[in-house]
Amino acid sequence: MTTIASISMSVDGFVTGPDDRPGQGLGVGGERLHYWVFGGPWTYDGDHDPDAMSGEDKAYYDGLIERIGAGIVGRGMYEAAGAWGGENPFPGTLVVLTHRIGDPHDESFTFVDGLDRALRLAREAAGDKAVSIGGGADVIRQALAAGEVDELCLSTAPVVLGTGKPLFDGSLELDLEPLAVHQSRWATHVRYAVTR
Amino acid sequence: MTTIASISMSVDGFVTGPDDRPGQGLGVGGERLHYWVFGGPWTYDGDHDPDAMSGEDKAYYDGLIERIGAGIVGRGMYEAAGAWGGENPFPGTLVVLTHRIGDPHDESFTFVDGLDRALRLAREAAGDKAVSIGGGADVIRQALAAGEVDELCLSTAPVVLGTGKPLFDGSLELDLEPLAVHQSRWATHVRYAVTR
Repeated sequence: MTTIASISMSVDGFVTGPDDRPGQGLGVGGERLHYWVFGGPWTYDGDHDPDAMSGEDKAYYDGLIERIGAGIVGRGMYEAAGAWGGENPFPGTLVVLTHRIGDPHDESFTFVDGLDRALRLAREAAGDKAVSIGGGADVIRQALAAGEVDELCLSTAPVVLGTGKPLFDGSLELDLEPLAVHQSRWATHVRYAVTR
Repeated sequence: MTTIASISMSVDGFVTGPDDRPGQGLGVGGERLHYWVFGGPWTYDGDHDPDAMSGEDKAYYDGLIERIGAGIVGRGMYEAAGAWGGENPFPGTLVVLTHRIGDPHDESFTFVDGLDRALRLAREAAGDKAVSIGGGADVIRQALAAGEVDELCLSTAPVVLGTGKPLFDGSLELDLEPLAVHQSRWATHVRYAVTR
């Protein structure tokens, strides 16, 4: 059972700009982290075409998604994304990791407390496919620290943000092995095996 | 006249591990940042073959070096590298940026005080070729902040160090445009145009 953590970050390692919250899920200026998702510039207020992803970005994303049977995200990411309009956009079950499992929530998602339980549930749900851990940074760090991540997929957007939420906070040392790269105008996608 | 800043860093953005100094120029554990330079694992104490660079690493490096007519490095990098044994390993003049221009120094290098003067001198020396800024991080940040860098070339080694000297310190915001990528076992080399 493969567990894959994937996230977008800036060249200086931030997964959001400052002030990320519902309505501006990637923070101020953080839209640029997801230009690759929408095929170019988009704004929190404007329309954007969900099918605009193309070329190497789409090759990377489709290659990842077809391997996934279930996913895990943190509550912060779930809320910042506005629960993706109430519909899980990823394959299979999406387990939302939260300490507030009593809160109201949409039935498209499963809420659990604790990474171990989230991993067990997602791995059961994934069948013979992989489990994805989609962020935020804290959930990915927690899973890496627990030795539960086989593959780390980083989409580095060509931007230096200067501030925001960092993916790494000094708590982890890792050896990685690059498996594949996809380069587009909007991101360098590298799939790494976590070797230590 | 193109000015190119190039440096190796970890996935978490460190250009050295902790305690970088003469004899361990990339700090503790930082050797991994330059596995791509020596074609694989090497140590500060052991021998290593200066001609072992190969494949995509060599394609990236040769492509960069053939464009360079002169270079600039900081005094810290010069000293951490042990002055490369007293011989400038890069094409053309190597200008060492230092506040201590009265110190004794080897004649293979030109010592100057101040980035403006270093750039002027290197640009004169480079003829119709490019000027490289090779680090350390502080010199590259200073040149980026001054708007003097056209191209930022980052060799990201597949390692998370957790600590060391960061390339970015929160003082810069940049928009970049990827120009080319070279992927090897030991590094992801991305050449970026600095667009803002």
